[in-house]
Amino acid sequence: MRTTPNYREIFCKRLKASRLARGLSQRNLGVLAGIDEFAASARINRYELGIHEVDIQTAQHLACVLNVPVAYFYTEDEQLAEMILLFSRSSSQLQEDVLALLR
Amino acid sequence: MRTTPNYREIFCKRLKASRLARGLSQRNLGVLAGIDEFAASARINRYELGIHEVDIQTAQHLACVLNVPVAYFYTEDEQLAEMILLFSRSSSQLQEDVLALLR
Repeated sequence: MRTTPNYREIFCKRLKASRLARGLSQRNLGVLAGIDEFAASARINRYELGIHEVDIQTAQHLACVLNVPVAYFYTEDEQLAEMILLFSRSSSQLQEDVLALLR
Repeated sequence: MRTTPNYREIFCKRLKASRLARGLSQRNLGVLAGIDEFAASARINRYELGIHEVDIQTAQHLACVLNVPVAYFYTEDEQLAEMILLFSRSSSQLQEDVLALLR
């Protein structure tokens, strides 16, 4: 039986993966996302551990710093997650070609 | 200057669009998502008006009923939103073909 995905865990996984992909420390990410430098590291660490659910505005700031669509943080399926990153970084022509293939 | 997208508004828009696409009333959607039938209509209405920010677990139930990925609710860009719906409903072969095109 397929277990119900835990979207807080998914958020944590995507946040950490995109932070590491950008080569940012937890502190740097926090500061760049507008969190006070003395709280930045601990806050991001709690977000990555799922201790706090991240509100949508904070998610938006984090996504902006990490150059990922907000949707990526809320994507359970690995194929769809990869697609969201690739698609969002593609030219509009390539996006059109892909949509034409899927329609 | 590009304004900062309001993700609560985006969530409202995507929720209503996917409910209407399924031909569901607010009440039916609420009941199918596990909300008490006497509160269902008002609750969904408040979600669609953005009066309350929807927590991730409720978003997950709504997405399941509406057969959309949770990520769809958090997608600002129209092209990406359409792609998420199409991709998530495509065969795994077509998904692979599309990913190969983008990689």
